[in-house]
Amino acid sequence: MARIQSKKNSTKKEIIIEKAARLFREKGFGAASMRDIAETVGVEAASLYNHIQSKSEILQAICFKVANDFIAQLEEVERSNASTLEKMETIIRMHIRMMLEHYEYVYISDHEWRHLPEPYLSNFLNQRRSYRKRLSDVIEEGIHKNEMKNIDPYVAVLTILSAISGIESWHRSRKTTGAETLEENMVKYLIEGLKK
Amino acid sequence: MARIQSKKNSTKKEIIIEKAARLFREKGFGAASMRDIAETVGVEAASLYNHIQSKSEILQAICFKVANDFIAQLEEVERSNASTLEKMETIIRMHIRMMLEHYEYVYISDHEWRHLPEPYLSNFLNQRRSYRKRLSDVIEEGIHKNEMKNIDPYVAVLTILSAISGIESWHRSRKTTGAETLEENMVKYLIEGLKK
Repeated sequence: MARIQSKKNSTKKEIIIEKAARLFREKGFGAASMRDIAETVGVEAASLYNHIQSKSEILQAICFKVANDFIAQLEEVERSNASTLEKMETIIRMHIRMMLEHYEYVYISDHEWRHLPEPYLSNFLNQRRSYRKRLSDVIEEGIHKNEMKNIDPYVAVLTILSAISGIESWHRSRKTTGAETLEENMVKYLIEGLKK
Repeated sequence: MARIQSKKNSTKKEIIIEKAARLFREKGFGAASMRDIAETVGVEAASLYNHIQSKSEILQAICFKVANDFIAQLEEVERSNASTLEKMETIIRMHIRMMLEHYEYVYISDHEWRHLPEPYLSNFLNQRRSYRKRLSDVIEEGIHKNEMKNIDPYVAVLTILSAISGIESWHRSRKTTGAETLEENMVKYLIEGLKK
């Protein structure tokens, strides 16, 4: 399910990106300096430049890694023979797991993409637009096939993705609700709201 | 429904708050200066201080105005004899309208509360926690009365409030979907997802 590079056998560059991701989330991309990143990684700033040229390079790596992951998983879903409701359930679950298991990466990709330099910024936004369109196509197909209720697909996608991004507030909370309860109940709510 | 001071017969102070709200959303509370506010209002910085002592005073006014509005409307709903589903529909609709009609105020109250000074910060967070608990009580009652499906009330409230805060992305979009379509479809999705 939720992919993104595991921590085992990471290269130095991957470790830098991972630690920078956490720093970006805590301080914000704008406020975090290359010096801060070096400190978090535990190397001299000069040696950091052997692996990474700029903060921006790290942001690009994070945003496009997250985008690749979502797109690869969506393509798998699109190719499957599942019903449109099953497809949406897989997509919703995948988004929730990404928020639960790769929170820092998804958070940065959601909040800091504005700092991407061109041509990456436009490319990222185009991919995002196309991704949302493809989700809305699955819902449109579901309505057409009478598997889903008649609902505006744009509003349904907005509702789903925004609800899931609210898991941010769960991450910041005392977490009296477990991750599994969160996932199961949010899936239930969002899928049953689509059903006929 | 969505209340908040109308623009007619506003006092000078209200006008300042209104213009500052827009500036805070555009630049962020941290980046906006009293000088910027004076410029937006069209007065000298010195004359601004006749009405407002600090940026923080404006932020407090906005956050507590929004909180008061939500709480007053929730109390009205709680006192009514409506079913729990009708109550949740009224609450969801009220939140959506606030996001549509008083976007700047709600945006700032949602995103910039961290900059509130004490004792306002703790007070604001306590009110927010209590507000969410009261929404979750309505859902718990709905489940108990067999009007709603068995769903974790905390997750349901998180899903609802996060979905609605996603209207931010609609505000930033080209708005090919009208406000009414947005409201009706989001209400439908979120209410039918709660139904038994």
